[in-house]
Amino acid sequence: MKPPFSTRLEKLRQLKSSVLCVGLDPDPSKLPTHLLASLPLHDAVRQFCFDIIEATHHTAIAYKLNVAFFEVLGREGFSVMQDVLQRIPADILSIADAKRGDIGNSASFYARAVFDTAGFDSITVSPYMGRDSVDPFLVHEGTCAFVLVRTSNPGSSDFQQLQTNDNLLYQEVATAVASWGEEAAGEAGFVVGATNTDDLATLRSSFPHIPFLIPGVGAQGGSAAEVMKAAGSGPVLINSSRGILYASSGEDFAEAAGRAAEETRAALLT
Amino acid sequence: MKPPFSTRLEKLRQLKSSVLCVGLDPDPSKLPTHLLASLPLHDAVRQFCFDIIEATHHTAIAYKLNVAFFEVLGREGFSVMQDVLQRIPADILSIADAKRGDIGNSASFYARAVFDTAGFDSITVSPYMGRDSVDPFLVHEGTCAFVLVRTSNPGSSDFQQLQTNDNLLYQEVATAVASWGEEAAGEAGFVVGATNTDDLATLRSSFPHIPFLIPGVGAQGGSAAEVMKAAGSGPVLINSSRGILYASSGEDFAEAAGRAAEETRAALLT
Repeated sequence: MKPPFSTRLEKLRQLKSSVLCVGLDPDPSKLPTHLLASLPLHDAVRQFCFDIIEATHHTAIAYKLNVAFFEVLGREGFSVMQDVLQRIPADILSIADAKRGDIGNSASFYARAVFDTAGFDSITVSPYMGRDSVDPFLVHEGTCAFVLVRTSNPGSSDFQQLQTNDNLLYQEVATAVASWGEEAAGEAGFVVGATNTDDLATLRSSFPHIPFLIPGVGAQGGSAAEVMKAAGSGPVLINSSRGILYASSGEDFAEAAGRAAEETRAALLT
Repeated sequence: MKPPFSTRLEKLRQLKSSVLCVGLDPDPSKLPTHLLASLPLHDAVRQFCFDIIEATHHTAIAYKLNVAFFEVLGREGFSVMQDVLQRIPADILSIADAKRGDIGNSASFYARAVFDTAGFDSITVSPYMGRDSVDPFLVHEGTCAFVLVRTSNPGSSDFQQLQTNDNLLYQEVATAVASWGEEAAGEAGFVVGATNTDDLATLRSSFPHIPFLIPGVGAQGGSAAEVMKAAGSGPVLINSSRGILYASSGEDFAEAAGRAAEETRAALLT
């Protein structure tokens, strides 16, 4: 029996004094030129991710693979994603950042693709189609479906902030998703942006035990401290992508990423 | 310069007296046993889709590939999807039913993956993250992003039907998406379920020129006629998947699919 996702998360947090999730968003236009010059693109992406994992796995407790950057590679994309996933040490958590969401039967195939075929520990999910589009991601023991609740992009206010009968839409989503996760074999988590720390703190006080995946924190100590305060003591992963991946574009990119990851880890816990 | 998606759609409708989109959802548990017995799963899926296309391309004006059923195949999945896409005659429209939706930079990579790398004509998109998650799917000339507006699954009432300040949420989404599409190089369409024909008719009267993708119509003439009446004279694709794909599970599956497609085409236009 696999232990619950949030149990693994908490153990890793204690063990490594870290809440850092490294986001693997291998943007072809930002890869080190020496890799691009010597390898076909998909091999350069694979090597880049391998080197980043090697340089950061002592400080990261999770890796989030942004599926878009693998799909854009075409026929080789899934294979590269699979290779990268398998390179992540087994004790570290993996997240397919895929924002999936479809009717029940299709959703169950997306869930099988991510949890069974590929072997991820968790996935990001979009809630717009409602319960039967989320439930299939909650039936896999030991996994977590991070559902989009309150994102931090400019468009997040278009719908998530709409006033509904009793609450703002994202609050309705949070309440519903939390209840769907209560009796599930897997866990339900929330994606909550780092920009609005007041909303983050309010969500945490209402949902103390839900795992939060918080994207968008850079290496800046100040905002990291504010986010951590707002995230409280519940289970949390703080993602950083570009600040780590592209800390240097030279041949020292991996060492620079390792240093940036360590700085981010430390900033998040002080 | 590629002609607009809805122009191609209308020409095909006239030419073939058809609004039929055949949904390619190759569920491994439903494939003909003789294919599964003689081929590895991914080859069986490819062959099944090839044979369905061969048998239905005289009546279909679009094919919708349900990406979940290709992703579940793992490393071979994208390649099989690409082969199937390339087998669709060039004049027939293709839809990646992927329900993508992510922040701007990631969304632009999803759009590149679907439109540039794979070569689809359109995609389904989820609106929860707002404008900057949809806009990147609207910049490719000659393409269409069908945004989830009012779906017909059981969970569609969880959020889409919530009363917001002025409208139900799905009405807010429809209004916003239509406006985002107005000045874009590509087109914005709506995914509208076939179950609620009143809502469908209301949406059509408000948005007479928006392409509607309507999933979930079977071979039943009755509901087909009601849906077509509600969909009015604007651009529309009516999708049928299981009623065509699995019309027979024997060696005659392709002939049976061809007949079912023709019956559905005829039912939709009478």
